Amino acid sequence: MNYFSSDFKLGILGGGQLGKMLLYNTRKFDIQTYVLDPSNEAPSRMACNTFVQGDLMDYDTVYNFGKQVDVLTIEIENVNVNALETLEEEGIKVFPSAKTLKQIQNKATQKLFYQDHNLPTAPFSRYAYLSEIEDAISNDALSFPFVWKAAQFGYDGNGVKIVRQLSDLNDLPKGECIAEQLVPFKNELAVIVARSSNGETKTYPVVEMEFHPEANQVEYVICPARVSPEVAQKAQDVALKTSKAYNHVGLLAVELFLTEDDTILINEVAPRPHNSGHQTIEASYTSQFEQHIRAILGLPLGSTDNTVAGVMVNLVGAEGHTGQVKYQNIETIMAMNGVTPHIYGKQQTRPFRKMGHVTITNKDLNTARQIAEEVKSSIKVISI
Amino acid sequence: MNYFSSDFKLGILGGGQLGKMLLYNTRKFDIQTYVLDPSNEAPSRMACNTFVQGDLMDYDTVYNFGKQVDVLTIEIENVNVNALETLEEEGIKVFPSAKTLKQIQNKATQKLFYQDHNLPTAPFSRYAYLSEIEDAISNDALSFPFVWKAAQFGYDGNGVKIVRQLSDLNDLPKGECIAEQLVPFKNELAVIVARSSNGETKTYPVVEMEFHPEANQVEYVICPARVSPEVAQKAQDVALKTSKAYNHVGLLAVELFLTEDDTILINEVAPRPHNSGHQTIEASYTSQFEQHIRAILGLPLGSTDNTVAGVMVNLVGAEGHTGQVKYQNIETIMAMNGVTPHIYGKQQTRPFRKMGHVTITNKDLNTARQIAEEVKSSIKVISI
Repeated sequence: MNYFSSDFKLGILGGGQLGKMLLYNTRKFDIQTYVLDPSNEAPSRMACNTFVQGDLMDYDTVYNFGKQVDVLTIEIENVNVNALETLEEEGIKVFPSAKTLKQIQNKATQKLFYQDHNLPTAPFSRYAYLSEIEDAISNDALSFPFVWKAAQFGYDGNGVKIVRQLSDLNDLPKGECIAEQLVPFKNELAVIVARSSNGETKTYPVVEMEFHPEANQVEYVICPARVSPEVAQKAQDVALKTSKAYNHVGLLAVELFLTEDDTILINEVAPRPHNSGHQTIEASYTSQFEQHIRAILGLPLGSTDNTVAGVMVNLVGAEGHTGQVKYQNIETIMAMNGVTPHIYGKQQTRPFRKMGHVTITNKDLNTARQIAEEVKSSIKVISI
Repeated sequence: MNYFSSDFKLGILGGGQLGKMLLYNTRKFDIQTYVLDPSNEAPSRMACNTFVQGDLMDYDTVYNFGKQVDVLTIEIENVNVNALETLEEEGIKVFPSAKTLKQIQNKATQKLFYQDHNLPTAPFSRYAYLSEIEDAISNDALSFPFVWKAAQFGYDGNGVKIVRQLSDLNDLPKGECIAEQLVPFKNELAVIVARSSNGETKTYPVVEMEFHPEANQVEYVICPARVSPEVAQKAQDVALKTSKAYNHVGLLAVELFLTEDDTILINEVAPRPHNSGHQTIEASYTSQFEQHIRAILGLPLGSTDNTVAGVMVNLVGAEGHTGQVKYQNIETIMAMNGVTPHIYGKQQTRPFRKMGHVTITNKDLNTARQIAEEVKSSIKVISI
């Protein structure tokens, strides 16, 4: 198919920040784009050819949207999968596939998939209701501490809690969930695998994630990860095996734990461009967004090598600040070497709300990491 | 002023490809943008907040457009400068300034400016009409060969001709022009200088330009230029001095000749992002587009260093092909290492029409140059 300057149409479910960054790259290739999002103020609205406002979980809305395009992709997992199944049957190319999305949407199913495919992950049990966890505890079938995870609709650290005592369960949603063994780990890593519709695969360098201890949001993404070549290879192998097990097309971001004894365990996956790959915009030969488009269109994949080292800092709302946003000291950080802010354009800030990110690039990783510290301690997302 | 997530408005005169690439970066900083362009199908239309269709040379149109914004910039020089002067008087920030634009719009004035400021340029004479050139020749005041240049509205090699005999003058426009001494040069170089509204300056590495012998369009831009450190320094010094002489704010692309005896002469300047800086998107810490925005907003300038070497290939319509465009073998070049095509989305091709560009990045410049050759010989912009 001739994608360039033709009648070819790409549809994207979800019009948030990831979609927006994806769209910059569709423009580079002059690809016609359709976006579906529930909000009329979706960031992608301005960057696509045709914007449709509508519910991503509604069968008819997703089906009718999908019928207009040749290839359909997502920037958010929570979409109506049944509509995608019908679209696939009717010849629309859907990447990631409805099947993969269904397996990933539910964290219990996702974990079972790893077990079934001999992919390493922490031991867990699945419960239809939260009350079954309480039963398991009282029957000594489950002991503290463990990690509770909602089976569905978790996002950015919501839907995950370390449970150390019975009262920690008090305010949790009552629905389907899993209890995962709390694995002591040295490091959280992530690997993004690109797999094209014609089977070509490429793996980005392993990144290291540092989480904010309280908000459970990524604070720094460090690329390449400061791990041994052996560990890096092991992480890439697991990620690649996971992408192949799903028979996945597009990007698959695989979040991993590195345990004390250098075992790699899969935490979870995201079948799309991911927060752990934002630094590829500035630090890689091919950004994750361009790569996702190459992959789902069956174009040759670009080089996943770093041109320079990259560190990404999430910009989240400061504690104690709710209201109209101000980026205090943004000019200070822009004067630092190799610093590029990405402001998402949300008008209102609140504590820990993701408001943007900053990329720091440098030929030397340690220098980049140091500048990232300075960025972090200088800029503050406050309310006016 | 707080540019980020505020009511601040940036206006751009012209909505072509340069404007479009500028707009990707305004989105990164969440800056509200207004674009004025005569065509309702301007490439920028999709990427700005507010699009206004209108004549860039019409006083009222430009004035009324400019009154709506806080800072006004251009992506094309041919705009109504009188309107810009009024806007400046009324407190709108206009970068480049009306005065600079006026000096640059007319090639004769531009050349006189260099003379007045002791900036090196090839000797020339100015003529009010083409017929005066013929008079000068018959009076032996001018001898062949020389370079004829239209004083106004030249673009991409139009408005420039090497004149070797009287008949070469036959089809030329009759208006104001200059006759420039034909200087034998080894190389065409270019330097982009960024100068912020607060006076901070930074200079991009010198690039080397290879022109298509027939179409007088740039075929390859090579960054960094393969010249001695002394020559590079001299070129950067001349460019910097030129930017300061104009008291310029924003980007100034300075095109230079390197003569046989290593003298640097200014060919011409463009007060905006420039074709000779496209490779900065992939090969520099800060793209020329981000830098232009930083400069005109008085934000700190970003690093102008290369992360890797970059070579840019212009994609122009193949000879013998006019009609609906097809990018033959684009998949072949996308499989090459570090190759990113930028397709401008023009539906119709014709010989030598600029249809896009391709950037080739690599840690090694010679490898990048070699891949660029392969790109050039593989891809062909043809009609269906």
